[in-house]
Amino acid sequence: MSRTLKAGRVATLVGGELIGPPDMAIAGIASLDEAGPGDLTFLATASHVSYLPATRAGAVLVTPEFRALTTGPATRIVVDDPRAALILIADALHDPDSPTWGVHPTAVIGAGARWSGAIAVGAYAVIGTDVRIGGECRIGPHVTIGDRAVLGDRCRIDAHAVVADGVELGNGVVLKAGARVGTPGFAFVDRDGHHTPIPHIGACRLGDDVEIGANTTVDRGSVGATVIGAGTKIDNLVQVAHNVRIGRRCLIMAQAGIAGTTTIGDDVVIAGQAGLAGHLTVGDRARIAAQSGVIGDVPEGVTISGYPARDHRAVLRQAAALRRLAPIVATLERVAAQHGETS
Amino acid sequence: MSRTLKAGRVATLVGGELIGPPDMAIAGIASLDEAGPGDLTFLATASHVSYLPATRAGAVLVTPEFRALTTGPATRIVVDDPRAALILIADALHDPDSPTWGVHPTAVIGAGARWSGAIAVGAYAVIGTDVRIGGECRIGPHVTIGDRAVLGDRCRIDAHAVVADGVELGNGVVLKAGARVGTPGFAFVDRDGHHTPIPHIGACRLGDDVEIGANTTVDRGSVGATVIGAGTKIDNLVQVAHNVRIGRRCLIMAQAGIAGTTTIGDDVVIAGQAGLAGHLTVGDRARIAAQSGVIGDVPEGVTISGYPARDHRAVLRQAAALRRLAPIVATLERVAAQHGETS
Amino acid sequence: MSRTLKAGRVATLVGGELIGPPDMAIAGIASLDEAGPGDLTFLATASHVSYLPATRAGAVLVTPEFRALTTGPATRIVVDDPRAALILIADALHDPDSPTWGVHPTAVIGAGARWSGAIAVGAYAVIGTDVRIGGECRIGPHVTIGDRAVLGDRCRIDAHAVVADGVELGNGVVLKAGARVGTPGFAFVDRDGHHTPIPHIGACRLGDDVEIGANTTVDRGSVGATVIGAGTKIDNLVQVAHNVRIGRRCLIMAQAGIAGTTTIGDDVVIAGQAGLAGHLTVGDRARIAAQSGVIGDVPEGVTISGYPARDHRAVLRQAAALRRLAPIVATLERVAAQHGETS
Repeated sequence: MSRTLKAGRVATLVGGELIGPPDMAIAGIASLDEAGPGDLTFLATASHVSYLPATRAGAVLVTPEFRALTTGPATRIVVDDPRAALILIADALHDPDSPTWGVHPTAVIGAGARWSGAIAVGAYAVIGTDVRIGGECRIGPHVTIGDRAVLGDRCRIDAHAVVADGVELGNGVVLKAGARVGTPGFAFVDRDGHHTPIPHIGACRLGDDVEIGANTTVDRGSVGATVIGAGTKIDNLVQVAHNVRIGRRCLIMAQAGIAGTTTIGDDVVIAGQAGLAGHLTVGDRARIAAQSGVIGDVPEGVTISGYPARDHRAVLRQAAALRRLAPIVATLERVAAQHGETS
Repeated sequence: MSRTLKAGRVATLVGGELIGPPDMAIAGIASLDEAGPGDLTFLATASHVSYLPATRAGAVLVTPEFRALTTGPATRIVVDDPRAALILIADALHDPDSPTWGVHPTAVIGAGARWSGAIAVGAYAVIGTDVRIGGECRIGPHVTIGDRAVLGDRCRIDAHAVVADGVELGNGVVLKAGARVGTPGFAFVDRDGHHTPIPHIGACRLGDDVEIGANTTVDRGSVGATVIGAGTKIDNLVQVAHNVRIGRRCLIMAQAGIAGTTTIGDDVVIAGQAGLAGHLTVGDRARIAAQSGVIGDVPEGVTISGYPARDHRAVLRQAAALRRLAPIVATLERVAAQHGETS
Repeated sequence: MSRTLKAGRVATLVGGELIGPPDMAIAGIASLDEAGPGDLTFLATASHVSYLPATRAGAVLVTPEFRALTTGPATRIVVDDPRAALILIADALHDPDSPTWGVHPTAVIGAGARWSGAIAVGAYAVIGTDVRIGGECRIGPHVTIGDRAVLGDRCRIDAHAVVADGVELGNGVVLKAGARVGTPGFAFVDRDGHHTPIPHIGACRLGDDVEIGANTTVDRGSVGATVIGAGTKIDNLVQVAHNVRIGRRCLIMAQAGIAGTTTIGDDVVIAGQAGLAGHLTVGDRARIAAQSGVIGDVPEGVTISGYPARDHRAVLRQAAALRRLAPIVATLERVAAQHGETS
């Protein structure tokens, strides 16, 4: 899962300047207070300088202003943008090629299921009949893949995820632990006073590089399809209802919910715990703030918040107005009484 | 999972008029842009007429106003209510009797577990000791059913659902993928500064035809029972806490949450992401809008919204009032200052 | 799972006075309307006295004011605090030592995994390589524990929970059904217009006696750790993002969400569906009301609510002010117009 790199190699990788021993072996990254002798740490803000003498880290990443520090780890790497450098280093230390290719002997593989090239299938995975899987897919323990599902190349289906019958995943799709994709939606008709479920015979398709968070639910279409566009990333515990269509490269944060048949454009950002009613249209590049309650269409490019969600600045202005009105409400009532009947 | 029906048979089924070849074989339903030659499509709104020439669908469902169209599929079925017709057709195409009855050889069946008549148990399902199951139940792969649980007839427990020890399900209950029913609740007493969990020895009972959404959680009672009445349908990612009692035929949308010991009447609708505090009573036929925060009892038949949730129209009126007051707040402050001390 | 205790023994246990036959055998606790002959029931409020004659319970717990009742069960136990007594009795009836110690033959145990003393491992559990487990841990069916994870003594990992690679759990940790602990977080960098995931190589550590609710998700750190302090209890369907640090003895209710890198002190209470933005600091003993939207740091000891979350009393005052202003908004507009230009 993790490799070791020498400090000199790391400095070259991030285009930084190395100060101190180049042979120090870096095996991980940790904060100043948590790092051990094999870790690279980092000075995130000037206010953390006082922690530097006590850190046990073997090396530290600093900005040019701390180039000349005399305390802390003997090995220093000087870069302009420590955050960008950290991502590069984490990437390099991380070894994504670790899976043991092969099918665990306990996996149940349905008749007609097939894949191309390498595959990793974990213990107790259940793969249905006539499933088609591309190359280099990794399927975790306890995963269930329904009959006739189709997976592209390089998909990663983590432990306990469920891919329902007939779901189609593009290349590089990631489903995190416990994600449910293609479950029947929540839609009923009234028959003699009973809520009778509408059969969900529609499709569910995820484009290339879509990511679905842990325990997130994506319902299949009732009639027609639920579609998530290429490059869209969805966080944990999100609800995507039946027949929702989401464009490309959207970011949808944890616990957001999208009701049935709503259509979302490209490059939309939906923050945590926001909710969208059904049958709406959200334009490209719209930004929906955390906890917004969206009950109408959203134009391209706007930023909205609140319930009912409106222009974010107007919402902030109204909240400020209310804070100013609350202390004078009794006076205003007296003024209004003097000016005759109320509205 | 899916059958094929001839167009003439479909027209008869929905009481519609057939125009064109009656032998066209319909195998699925899809939207105008997605349909293939074996699909029935539908003209949902007049604004979609322009898509008709390009559709690849084999047949189309239209309202009488589009009876005489000269473009689009050769086979047309004319009905007054396309939406109702679609549900009937989806029902007819859908084949719910597809399960292969039998117990997968990898299923673990506890001592004393028994069922009547046909049963379908998927791969790696685990059924506890002394479990009683009715006829024609379908239990998906990786399902866990705890000791002494009781299931009625025709239940469908989807992949990865958990039914805890002693939970009782009526007839026709549906648990979707990853639902957790009968888990211990969240309740503590303080002992020497520690939050000590109260043992949850209470029951958990779901009436006939209850449906529980994917990854939804239903806690068992601490002392006494958590009860969900017949015909109530619950969507994905909903939280139902310990000792909650829900009446019959309620609809509870995705990501709603109900805290401990709250009692809900019959025919109540709780929209998405709404939250109800504990120890409340909600009257029959109340409607709770999306994202409402309910912190007091709710009378029968009312519609409420907002936080704290109040009469929905009052909330909308207040939101409109604030939008009108925000631009004049500075003037109102000056007026109030002229009228003496603030409240 | 449950024991039987005689009424006399129960009265002694709770320091109560026994009236009636001491040999009545109590096997459970139930409400007045649900209790059977083997159950102890309780008179929670004076308004329930009318239910007493009809109860089938074998014994009833009452406060001194109902000591002399002549209706209801022949066996009565008189205590000052029925709620505290019920918890003691539930504890005594509950038999937490019921697990059959041993490893189910279907469990898959990785190379190098080891434990000390008794262990209970359920059917189809999958335990990775080099996992270390303390004594008397109970691991439910279908649990997945990743490589190199570390569990303390007396942990309880319920059915379908996932403990990811390298996660560290203290003693007495409880993970309820479907909890996901140590999943990779939701963080990306833009590379050529693509959201490229940051590798999550950080740690995830839960202190002693931490409890994680059903289907709750706890992401691991990207760089550095996600940490939950000893004695903190988290309810169902909560989201804890990467690099969050939560102190000791916090209570976090259902469907709350905490975004990345936020730090929370000790003894904090976060009520249901509250959301906290990322990179915040919440002081010790703060109380965050249900559905709050927290977008700034929170001082020690305060109670906040609303969106953006502010002092709870100010929020209630402002809501009351708006209710008073809404009916006079037209008059106030006229007044403002008379006083010149708007702000």
